[in-house]
Amino acid sequence: MLKVGLLGAGRIGQVHAVNIANNARSTLVAVSDVHEEAARKLATQYGAEARSSDEILADPGIDAVLIATSTDTHSTLIEAATAAGKAVLCEKPVDLSLARAQQCLAAVATTGQPVMIGFNRRFDPNFAALKAASLAGEIGKSELLSVTSFDPAPPPVSYIKVSGGLFRDMMIHDFDMANFIMGERPVAVRAVGSAIVDPGIGAAGDVDTAVVTLTYADGRIAVIKNSRRAVYGYDQRVELLGSDGLLQAGNMLENTVVRSTTAGVSAAKPTYFFLERYMTAYAAEWEAFVAALLDGADLPVTLEDGIAALAMAEAATESAKTGQAVPLQG
Amino acid sequence: MLKVGLLGAGRIGQVHAVNIANNARSTLVAVSDVHEEAARKLATQYGAEARSSDEILADPGIDAVLIATSTDTHSTLIEAATAAGKAVLCEKPVDLSLARAQQCLAAVATTGQPVMIGFNRRFDPNFAALKAASLAGEIGKSELLSVTSFDPAPPPVSYIKVSGGLFRDMMIHDFDMANFIMGERPVAVRAVGSAIVDPGIGAAGDVDTAVVTLTYADGRIAVIKNSRRAVYGYDQRVELLGSDGLLQAGNMLENTVVRSTTAGVSAAKPTYFFLERYMTAYAAEWEAFVAALLDGADLPVTLEDGIAALAMAEAATESAKTGQAVPLQG
Amino acid sequence: MLKVGLLGAGRIGQVHAVNIANNARSTLVAVSDVHEEAARKLATQYGAEARSSDEILADPGIDAVLIATSTDTHSTLIEAATAAGKAVLCEKPVDLSLARAQQCLAAVATTGQPVMIGFNRRFDPNFAALKAASLAGEIGKSELLSVTSFDPAPPPVSYIKVSGGLFRDMMIHDFDMANFIMGERPVAVRAVGSAIVDPGIGAAGDVDTAVVTLTYADGRIAVIKNSRRAVYGYDQRVELLGSDGLLQAGNMLENTVVRSTTAGVSAAKPTYFFLERYMTAYAAEWEAFVAALLDGADLPVTLEDGIAALAMAEAATESAKTGQAVPLQG
Amino acid sequence: MLKVGLLGAGRIGQVHAVNIANNARSTLVAVSDVHEEAARKLATQYGAEARSSDEILADPGIDAVLIATSTDTHSTLIEAATAAGKAVLCEKPVDLSLARAQQCLAAVATTGQPVMIGFNRRFDPNFAALKAASLAGEIGKSELLSVTSFDPAPPPVSYIKVSGGLFRDMMIHDFDMANFIMGERPVAVRAVGSAIVDPGIGAAGDVDTAVVTLTYADGRIAVIKNSRRAVYGYDQRVELLGSDGLLQAGNMLENTVVRSTTAGVSAAKPTYFFLERYMTAYAAEWEAFVAALLDGADLPVTLEDGIAALAMAEAATESAKTGQAVPLQG
Repeated sequence: MLKVGLLGAGRIGQVHAVNIANNARSTLVAVSDVHEEAARKLATQYGAEARSSDEILADPGIDAVLIATSTDTHSTLIEAATAAGKAVLCEKPVDLSLARAQQCLAAVATTGQPVMIGFNRRFDPNFAALKAASLAGEIGKSELLSVTSFDPAPPPVSYIKVSGGLFRDMMIHDFDMANFIMGERPVAVRAVGSAIVDPGIGAAGDVDTAVVTLTYADGRIAVIKNSRRAVYGYDQRVELLGSDGLLQAGNMLENTVVRSTTAGVSAAKPTYFFLERYMTAYAAEWEAFVAALLDGADLPVTLEDGIAALAMAEAATESAKTGQAVPLQG
Repeated sequence: MLKVGLLGAGRIGQVHAVNIANNARSTLVAVSDVHEEAARKLATQYGAEARSSDEILADPGIDAVLIATSTDTHSTLIEAATAAGKAVLCEKPVDLSLARAQQCLAAVATTGQPVMIGFNRRFDPNFAALKAASLAGEIGKSELLSVTSFDPAPPPVSYIKVSGGLFRDMMIHDFDMANFIMGERPVAVRAVGSAIVDPGIGAAGDVDTAVVTLTYADGRIAVIKNSRRAVYGYDQRVELLGSDGLLQAGNMLENTVVRSTTAGVSAAKPTYFFLERYMTAYAAEWEAFVAALLDGADLPVTLEDGIAALAMAEAATESAKTGQAVPLQG
Repeated sequence: MLKVGLLGAGRIGQVHAVNIANNARSTLVAVSDVHEEAARKLATQYGAEARSSDEILADPGIDAVLIATSTDTHSTLIEAATAAGKAVLCEKPVDLSLARAQQCLAAVATTGQPVMIGFNRRFDPNFAALKAASLAGEIGKSELLSVTSFDPAPPPVSYIKVSGGLFRDMMIHDFDMANFIMGERPVAVRAVGSAIVDPGIGAAGDVDTAVVTLTYADGRIAVIKNSRRAVYGYDQRVELLGSDGLLQAGNMLENTVVRSTTAGVSAAKPTYFFLERYMTAYAAEWEAFVAALLDGADLPVTLEDGIAALAMAEAATESAKTGQAVPLQG
Repeated sequence: MLKVGLLGAGRIGQVHAVNIANNARSTLVAVSDVHEEAARKLATQYGAEARSSDEILADPGIDAVLIATSTDTHSTLIEAATAAGKAVLCEKPVDLSLARAQQCLAAVATTGQPVMIGFNRRFDPNFAALKAASLAGEIGKSELLSVTSFDPAPPPVSYIKVSGGLFRDMMIHDFDMANFIMGERPVAVRAVGSAIVDPGIGAAGDVDTAVVTLTYADGRIAVIKNSRRAVYGYDQRVELLGSDGLLQAGNMLENTVVRSTTAGVSAAKPTYFFLERYMTAYAAEWEAFVAALLDGADLPVTLEDGIAALAMAEAATESAKTGQAVPLQG
């Protein structure tokens, strides 16, 4: 039974609390949050205690921590938790600065503690099934990957300003998806982007619509499309062309009802946002973390994976500014 | 090259004229119609002559006639045409009276001429593919058939009064579809029906919504659903459950465009009515008739098939009135 | 906070235990089962106690019981629990005997306790959305209902023998679905059935494939199709034609991945059986029961609803034997 | 009645012959081909005459010519035909050389004759419906376009060598599609490509898999994906994200049959190649040409459109080689 401390009791922390509590091999022992009341409320609901993060890290009875705090604390908390001998599952991104993230990686290496980065989409049953079908050779050799990833609505400009920009904040998930599906890192990144959804985003120096092309040493190509606004809901699709066919993973709909009227044939919208779409994925992610720790399986997403995606985000940010292709270290 | 006379230059006659003209092995030689002007116009378009039906039947240069006249003339024209040594493709139904149709069958038998009944839906690529998949054993032994067949809008009550009723006029197509897919005739018919689309149809002694259950000697079951009104368009679907799976043939849509908005995800409607849906089927039907005559293949739909469907329609009409199951002669 | 005793720790009891525990307004206090070990194991997992059903009913600290025991105990336990002042949620059916169920209804009436019957499919998000769309007038006046309900595989013949037969054991869910969607009870039932999936089922006096037609006082019609075997998975669909359109609620698929190869375009199968398909429905069912008790809302499914479905099952059983329509008391 | 001469009796010439003959307002008068026998055969089928192209251009009784000859003859024949006072519908591309095509444009301008380029996909009912929905404002302001365009199988390397390369030979259709949907020309082209389908294509200096990003003055972005091989059939899809929603135009399938078995749920493949997919489009294209000439409507695709697509192909070819973005003259 894995004893777990949860750092962060916000929206995403609450999702993790459910999964920690429902998993037959893990228990939620303690919760911390900068808002003590939020920690207390969440802890009570699951029979855990509200404590400070320092107390949690200092408690030898706690085996693992789940870091669901704000991005700027991630690398520091990863370092502190691993130094304290905890296994770590940390929400993405590792850090907004690639250099800082690499420093964190070095620090973790000295502890030997396992650190998994929460790229939840790898655990979505649809994307996982696509990856499994590809690995099983169902479409032969993969050649061309497309990732469509649109948010339902743009965040406030105030958030944009501290987000690190679309490539680090939003497309980082899709960079990891490309790494997950292609099983290899690209050699070059080309990005274009513009602010056509919200001019305020442009004024803040960011883009809200972007296309990135990744090229691979063996000639394969990947394309990622991002938009901050798809009014019909969270649009998350992956498509992989191979020598023997095509694999597509589509959206999940709110329900299966189809209406046929004089106006046409209409179905439900995609589930609204990541909490609806990826609820199953978060549970599977936690199960994979527990299994890695208790069964000695490999971590399915490593700190290195988190840094690789960050490096791609940095390259894309640069490419979108300069208009040049940016090479990557494999 | 098959030389063809077309009897009837109305809406359905015009469809057949196109197919006769476009088929590489048939030529449209002559067209007749009670409205001479209609015959003339259609004939001119395809380089044929407008003549009376008597003249057409008397012309030894004409090999085959396509009968697309009003229902009450079908059996008489079939008899006259076969007596004159013509091969015949006649629109359904053979007659509204089962007794009269059987008389026609006897008359035709003495001539030895081939007569095909125009159950066009057998030639729809979707239903034909379903039948082929079933014959190929893709779902093992068939067990339960469902036929959904809804018209877009009810005809005027004046038409209903001379139509022979829903079972003879509309469901006859679905009876033939059941015979086509099941490859066997049912042993009993149970029907329920009501007039809830248009009370005028009820006042005229007919129904506009009906469900018929067919049972087979080997225990298989079929269900046919009819409605005179599906405001979203012609709804023509077939579904066959077997020991190893399910086959479904669906509607064709006007186009493949899908719109995702805040209102939901919407697609185009089914093609509006039989002319849109079955245009391909009419061409394939004609090609099958030509192939049967010129290549010595079997007729894919016989006069006996037309009579079998009519017998089922008569039994359903009776069952809907009495509330009793009506047995059929295999 | 609703304090709950669970009677029955089998497969379906375990599903209910999860939902009782996860619901913010209910707690699982005690579990009973004829196999004491099963009760103990389930109780432990959720911090409850294993007790006998008598102890549970006698405990004044328990507000409600969920009856998930074998069918033959349902009516007796409902009577005992309501007599003991408990609110009851009981799995369907109330009883295999209509007379016994009516006796139970009379007994419950004297206690004034609320009793809900677990017709879980009413809480499936797809069927619930279809019902809501119909109530909202999206397709005008409803006219023709179709319910397709196929199990993935037939149960052993030993189960068939004690099941009460397909109409009472399996189609009872679909009778309730018809009552739910149509908002009214039919006036007559016509059934046909045969044993073509498994001859052993026929030898046991039951059918495995059946079609039932329901007719309504206002002329509406409903059709229910059942098969004990759909090798591709649990097939649960509802389709409602109305004056302004068609509503269809379809299956949920295991995932959204689509494969396009030289063999065709293929998608995942429907979720395998009721535990996979209706997991969400069971949670919503429990939430509705809790809301009815704590918020004073109406029970969404009553004991009378359970008895109405049973009466339809009895009528269908008779109709399938006699070949006659069986009238129902509205 | 438009009197038409057809130059070229090959595969695509035969498609056009059917449409010229079936259109109520056009007649096929003459056919030419470098293989006289091919011209004779096609002419006979439609009651036309086989002549040389010189004879056709010299015949004052011929109003219009359809140029369906090999690409290297297009610009010369356009010049000759317009000089001879004919209206012209010419298959794409105008020429493989942008300079030569511009010269042709200048020559045509002096004659004042109408010249339409056969970008048939604009007339596909699916893409046309998507464009109409966009123009009707159904998704608000367009932002991000994706065009997926995969051929079923690569052509022989011998063809590749004279084709002008993937961007001029294959993607030119998609450049025109982008121009058609976006209603504006892009300001820059970025291309990546590789030869991973067939190394022989790489050895011939061409690519078989490519992604092109187009950027527009107003910040919009378009992505085009091409592959020479999609083993499941011709894959032709367009997707347009706008401020109020998403429009998608998908493939047409061979039929609507769906098979559900233990192996999954499978549907038919997309129609195999352009002749199957775009047969309707070719007829609509010809009708649009006839309507422009006889009704005085605007030509829906102009010679300038042909040159614009060619300029984009040239820019993409350069970008794929240099790795740099290539600016375009609006």
